[in-house]
Amino acid sequence: MTEFLEQCRAAIGAAHVLTDAADMAAHLTDWRRRFTGQAQAVLKPGTPEETAALVRLCNRFRVPLVPQGGNTGLVLGSVPDRSGAAVVVSTTRLNRIRAIDTVNNTMTVEAGCVLQTIQNAAAEAGRLFPLSLAAEGSCTIGGNLSTNAGGTGVLRYGNTRELCLGLEVVTAQGQVWSGLRGLRKDNTGYDLRDLFIGAEGTLGGVTAAVLRLFPLPKAQLTALGAMKTPDDALTLLSIAQARCGAALTGFELMSDFCLQLVGKHFPQLRLPFPEASPQYVLLELSDSESEEHANLMLESVITEALEQGVIHDAAVASSIAQSKGLWSLREHISLAQATEGKNIKHDISVPISRIGDFIRVTDGLLQQQFPGCRMVTFGHLGDGNLHYNVSPPEHQSDEAFIADQAAINQVVHDSVHRFGGSISAEHGLGTLKRDEIRQYKSDVELSLMKTIKQALDPLGLMNPGKVL
Amino acid sequence: MTEFLEQCRAAIGAAHVLTDAADMAAHLTDWRRRFTGQAQAVLKPGTPEETAALVRLCNRFRVPLVPQGGNTGLVLGSVPDRSGAAVVVSTTRLNRIRAIDTVNNTMTVEAGCVLQTIQNAAAEAGRLFPLSLAAEGSCTIGGNLSTNAGGTGVLRYGNTRELCLGLEVVTAQGQVWSGLRGLRKDNTGYDLRDLFIGAEGTLGGVTAAVLRLFPLPKAQLTALGAMKTPDDALTLLSIAQARCGAALTGFELMSDFCLQLVGKHFPQLRLPFPEASPQYVLLELSDSESEEHANLMLESVITEALEQGVIHDAAVASSIAQSKGLWSLREHISLAQATEGKNIKHDISVPISRIGDFIRVTDGLLQQQFPGCRMVTFGHLGDGNLHYNVSPPEHQSDEAFIADQAAINQVVHDSVHRFGGSISAEHGLGTLKRDEIRQYKSDVELSLMKTIKQALDPLGLMNPGKVL
Repeated sequence: MTEFLEQCRAAIGAAHVLTDAADMAAHLTDWRRRFTGQAQAVLKPGTPEETAALVRLCNRFRVPLVPQGGNTGLVLGSVPDRSGAAVVVSTTRLNRIRAIDTVNNTMTVEAGCVLQTIQNAAAEAGRLFPLSLAAEGSCTIGGNLSTNAGGTGVLRYGNTRELCLGLEVVTAQGQVWSGLRGLRKDNTGYDLRDLFIGAEGTLGGVTAAVLRLFPLPKAQLTALGAMKTPDDALTLLSIAQARCGAALTGFELMSDFCLQLVGKHFPQLRLPFPEASPQYVLLELSDSESEEHANLMLESVITEALEQGVIHDAAVASSIAQSKGLWSLREHISLAQATEGKNIKHDISVPISRIGDFIRVTDGLLQQQFPGCRMVTFGHLGDGNLHYNVSPPEHQSDEAFIADQAAINQVVHDSVHRFGGSISAEHGLGTLKRDEIRQYKSDVELSLMKTIKQALDPLGLMNPGKVL
Repeated sequence: MTEFLEQCRAAIGAAHVLTDAADMAAHLTDWRRRFTGQAQAVLKPGTPEETAALVRLCNRFRVPLVPQGGNTGLVLGSVPDRSGAAVVVSTTRLNRIRAIDTVNNTMTVEAGCVLQTIQNAAAEAGRLFPLSLAAEGSCTIGGNLSTNAGGTGVLRYGNTRELCLGLEVVTAQGQVWSGLRGLRKDNTGYDLRDLFIGAEGTLGGVTAAVLRLFPLPKAQLTALGAMKTPDDALTLLSIAQARCGAALTGFELMSDFCLQLVGKHFPQLRLPFPEASPQYVLLELSDSESEEHANLMLESVITEALEQGVIHDAAVASSIAQSKGLWSLREHISLAQATEGKNIKHDISVPISRIGDFIRVTDGLLQQQFPGCRMVTFGHLGDGNLHYNVSPPEHQSDEAFIADQAAINQVVHDSVHRFGGSISAEHGLGTLKRDEIRQYKSDVELSLMKTIKQALDPLGLMNPGKVL
């Protein structure tokens, strides 16, 4: 036991300093099991002050530290490197809901609270916390904030950034910045909150936040529309936005191939149409009034879309079970493609108006260079965010296909860049996209980012090797 | 003509380098005519590149520069000090609307575009740009962004920060950072956009932005409710939010004394009630469906509020003229209090749930120390933002009253601080609140702000003396 670890034990209690390999294992491997790092220890502070004390020790002993929430990230942002020099600082024990204020519509939570716990606490108080994503049963709000997580509610409610009014952060020097303000308006200086949000723990560590709550909708309705092209889906989006305004809370595109994969691997999940179409959109309306009213709105959208020839078929869920059934189709795409075999994922966004052209052009480029590759294209069309994933041609081995990964990424991300898009719409950079992003950001922007990193974390101890 | 100014002429053309006192006058005095500074020159670049060239010259010759939009700010943030050392860099000529994309719902505008011009261009394209505030005919979007302006649409659409997807900024070193992305989701590094937004030109100068547009509502309805207390107004807010969700786009509190002043100085504006009440709320609904539907929603809110005894009277505007009439009452409060004489203004916010207590406690403290002072309390209750203004007792001279200004500010702002609020909700710090804010921010926060300023503007040339 080194002096550093002795002092950590003194600061937070020996029981919360894990050095045993078995105890540390879950903290050292990433969610998709693609990388395993090493660490001196996993530290589990119980309060912001204990967290700050650990950061001060890291400063004194020059130990790099990796903040970690639920460790569900997809870009290797929350695991240490293989040097074994770092410690993981896990927020597991920072898991109190500190306050709920239903008049101010805010909830104050600690970083280690699991997203689903927060959703449930809000619902029990008669409010909605709208952040929702696949990992919600395991991910923590600290991680959601540090990666500015997206998910399925962004169209109406924004990214995690837009759901946060205030933060408590332990700085790289081990001081607690208490910015837990529950205010909608505050123009008294630089926006430190948004600087720490999305910084992936490289500028400081989030320990608590004030989150925004919303009224619970009275009714939620789901429908599935069938159409020919992504451009038709965009026209449907315009119709739905004009007719429903903020009541439109979900708008997910799924290509036919996505649902073929779902049908193949989950035959119990069935499309509500007799024949296949090239594209589908899952719409969700959330109504503050009544189910009847939601139904009327949805019917009016579908009627106009059918009349204009934008869609050629539609199914409206008439029960919560049917609604869940439609969402299941969407939610099983990732599982179905994993069951099918290897695939190369891209979490990209482009301006919504350019989505049709982007898909057409990029599909063409990929077919030229990798003939027969199969596109698993789906995602949050209403946000311009696609999971633009590539599966191997039918008879190619996974190994041969994965050997082309870098070349495929290059084709896709170069195209995204030409369309004015982002190569990481909702997952962050971590270590996975850290090198790649340098091709797409200007020197001015990279230099501004480095200047900020250097200023706030001059010793470079905060989650080193991530983002920059 | 100094060598510096010669070079400025060479960079942007002699016609755009103003040194004549008469030409410069409008740029040196603030909107409320409380302060007149001095400058070497007023510079009017025509492009971002010209702006950058000027900033590089300022670097070379160590000349401080004051970015200026419509110069309508209320905290002395856009005028130079009296030393005469600085130049004003006016965005007047950066006034192109570069693009409108109705499918992506974005508009790309230069910093010098007047807010009203942007609102009109959006409306002509069948879209809404929802930022709206008193100075909209003169203020520019660059100023709105640099101060993160609020206004009457924040409840539904957020502050200027939430209305911006991308920025173009000239850095303190005179480089152009082009971050004009029109993306709803982009998690590729630090949030530079939000760092420059609200920084009041002290970290760099905004030259262009990508703004979010929204569908035009089909109908807007306004109503006025009469109630006893601010707490009743909060209950009405909860009822309206539960019933109307995002359709509730305005919620403005006005005390009886505010409307007495309006009635006294603008007798043509009349309250639609036979008898006065202690408090009033102006509600606005924006409906994506129809006027009929908006009417039904509004009626349901008012019926519930009357049944619960939350309000005792209500008037619903049945025409656009009547709606304008109700908004006129709200909009004439500032003019009426100015006509009445001097008053001491506070642009404050507290958590919405604490507004009732804040008003009660702070009114009491002021009456104790300044007996007879009259409260002109109104504002954006739905955002927790009050214009909590103090008028002198009836027979006190303006001079005697203004002598107490610092003491009155101290009482109000100390109380705001105890209630977890902000002493500048929507106007910024400028030079006016720069010293005062140091009492209310922690050393950690002030130190983080200074670190960022020092890192991005090491020569301290960007709008010196403002914010920090």
